[in-house]
Amino acid sequence: MNAMSNILIENLEIKDLRFPTSRQKDGSDAMHTDPDYSCAYVIIHTNSAFKGYGLTFTLGKGTEIVVTAIRALEYLVIGKSVNSIFTNFSTFWRSLTSESQLRWLGPEKGVIHLATAAIINGLWDLWARLENKPVWELLSNLTPEQLVSTIDFRYITDSITREEAIEILKKEARFKKQRINEIVKKGYPAYTTQVGWLGYSDDKMKQLCEKYLEKGFTAFKLKVGQNLENDIERCRMVRNCIGYENKLMLDANQVWDINVAIDWMKKLTEFKPLWIEEPTAPDDILGHATIARALEEFHIGVATGEMCANRIIFKQLMQANAIKYCQIDSARVGGINELLPIYLMAKKFGVKVCPHAGGIGLCEMVQHLQYWDYICLTGSMEDKWIEYVDQQHEHFKYPVVIVKGRYMPRRVSFN
Amino acid sequence: MNAMSNILIENLEIKDLRFPTSRQKDGSDAMHTDPDYSCAYVIIHTNSAFKGYGLTFTLGKGTEIVVTAIRALEYLVIGKSVNSIFTNFSTFWRSLTSESQLRWLGPEKGVIHLATAAIINGLWDLWARLENKPVWELLSNLTPEQLVSTIDFRYITDSITREEAIEILKKEARFKKQRINEIVKKGYPAYTTQVGWLGYSDDKMKQLCEKYLEKGFTAFKLKVGQNLENDIERCRMVRNCIGYENKLMLDANQVWDINVAIDWMKKLTEFKPLWIEEPTAPDDILGHATIARALEEFHIGVATGEMCANRIIFKQLMQANAIKYCQIDSARVGGINELLPIYLMAKKFGVKVCPHAGGIGLCEMVQHLQYWDYICLTGSMEDKWIEYVDQQHEHFKYPVVIVKGRYMPRRVSFN
Repeated sequence: MNAMSNILIENLEIKDLRFPTSRQKDGSDAMHTDPDYSCAYVIIHTNSAFKGYGLTFTLGKGTEIVVTAIRALEYLVIGKSVNSIFTNFSTFWRSLTSESQLRWLGPEKGVIHLATAAIINGLWDLWARLENKPVWELLSNLTPEQLVSTIDFRYITDSITREEAIEILKKEARFKKQRINEIVKKGYPAYTTQVGWLGYSDDKMKQLCEKYLEKGFTAFKLKVGQNLENDIERCRMVRNCIGYENKLMLDANQVWDINVAIDWMKKLTEFKPLWIEEPTAPDDILGHATIARALEEFHIGVATGEMCANRIIFKQLMQANAIKYCQIDSARVGGINELLPIYLMAKKFGVKVCPHAGGIGLCEMVQHLQYWDYICLTGSMEDKWIEYVDQQHEHFKYPVVIVKGRYMPRRVSFN
Repeated sequence: MNAMSNILIENLEIKDLRFPTSRQKDGSDAMHTDPDYSCAYVIIHTNSAFKGYGLTFTLGKGTEIVVTAIRALEYLVIGKSVNSIFTNFSTFWRSLTSESQLRWLGPEKGVIHLATAAIINGLWDLWARLENKPVWELLSNLTPEQLVSTIDFRYITDSITREEAIEILKKEARFKKQRINEIVKKGYPAYTTQVGWLGYSDDKMKQLCEKYLEKGFTAFKLKVGQNLENDIERCRMVRNCIGYENKLMLDANQVWDINVAIDWMKKLTEFKPLWIEEPTAPDDILGHATIARALEEFHIGVATGEMCANRIIFKQLMQANAIKYCQIDSARVGGINELLPIYLMAKKFGVKVCPHAGGIGLCEMVQHLQYWDYICLTGSMEDKWIEYVDQQHEHFKYPVVIVKGRYMPRRVSFN
């Protein structure tokens, strides 16, 4: 990191970017009827030619609130040397998440944590650019000790400790090279959410199922929860299109109370959904556990995570056997530093991480972590997929590459 | 409500008010070393002479973020008739908390929920002014059906339903008149946090203990968690001053992991603390439950709530037997509409509500709910206190009245 020692962060350029996606009902579900996919976008300027690019996803309104929050945090970043940040990343991370006045506004949740994520992910991007490799390679090249040094274990030591994390990673280290070769060749499985937004007509859904089958997808997600009869019809139609040899996931986007979730899903068992996603409020650990127990006999797993605020919520979802599928979002929790311990806990608890994506830049960001998971942590893609929605990729210099229903890692050189 | 039918909300005046309390270390604790007590303050203007006043407390930095969030929500309020809001208050409340684009920024937590609370509490204040009575009397005069109609039961029906809530309130209704007379005469017990801020010197603490004993206080709270030896010394000193006939509460402000919390508190058992407040992260329901089980044999209760985001977190804390004392904050969850179901669940689970106060206006606001709890819900003050800190009351037209360590309800007439 010697090259970095003189590089200082000079300022943050913050943009409020909005796209009118609600016009086509793209992204519509039982709770979010008219999302305008948007983001708070951060460019970290240094006293060198290197810049870091980070963002957090929003649904349109309120993006300006996140921008204001990033401005409130920037005083903790500006003037710092990148060397001092990256060699003490967990301490730096805590300086943002535990700022003694700002933490009242969270702590570690909502707007202030979304803002933290945008900055933190921008710093990881900057680090990768300085090392002239994509983030997944940066992560994979770190030693177990280096990687773990970026994690703040506060509040999760009853589930995983620094020493345990290092031990887990050390055991996997000898497979790294081989797994990198594998993943670069064969990619990582994706599932598509594009076929089943709630605002889409039956014809549109059918066409989309056929389109994605042709493209090689084998896993399809459908939004449910507004009307049971419609859900039954929609599930039947999609199963008719994709057959039972492919996977079907369902997503209720938090629309149900506990008992309603259980009763509703019992009416959909004939369609053999792999999981029910967000059956209720993202904060309800015990509620998810109750639903999971009730649906176990039907082999329907519970999935949640895109609106789970932090590692403490994920820790409990795992401790309580409340989820089988863990759907981290790249910028909901406090960026990569907080995503890493969630992956480590998932490994320990045997939970499958299937990241939330779509939106703006979520596919582009979260793929890096899932590649790292395969290379350094689990060595398995079994029963795991990265969500994929093919919208808004055209705005990125390095959009995701999908081949036959699989995410393909790039080996980009920035210099 | 006929007088209200033509009253429309015209605009929100929003102020960012900050006080430099960190200069005296007032409010300092293990996590918040230099708070500047502040608030986002909302004045709801109508097309009449009536106004509503609401606020949410902050620690200084970031108040502008909450102000921006209130601006983002105001479009849902402006132009509405107060009659349409108050006769359908739960529906109106949900229109704010579930706004389909803004809810991504929470949901129901952090900045966006603090902003919601400021608006909602301002509306309750407006309603009380229209009825020419203080909020506690407005609440107490509502029929069980009217009161429950203000509550959104989404996500808590596995714990309490609308029907149950009405039934509970109906059983207590015949005691209302008698309890109003009692509480107006004898007030409600307070405890003081003023003696034990972490930044205070030993001399200052001793003087303050004597001062508050003289004022008639019988319950005292001390901040702990930065250094065990210091904590032992401070506890000993305070116990020497107040004796064992008075109550001592301890507050760690989230500084510990689960096992540390248990070990640390075991070293303080000789001082017989009534409760340990915020032993760990406010999101950690299962962690609090573990701590509660470990400390039960020492008769130390677990208390938390001032940073618990919403009714869903409180529901689980009660379901998991994680808390004995529930410390709601008047403006952390989404205002009075969300505080009411938390009180109702506490009644059902036998948990004691001891509201968080201090800050700016928190004493002024939360007293109303605690009076209502006594009058309409529990009829008991046993093992319950409202927190009291005597700072920043001078800014209010109707500051709290404390007599011999008790909050005294006012019967203010506004017209």
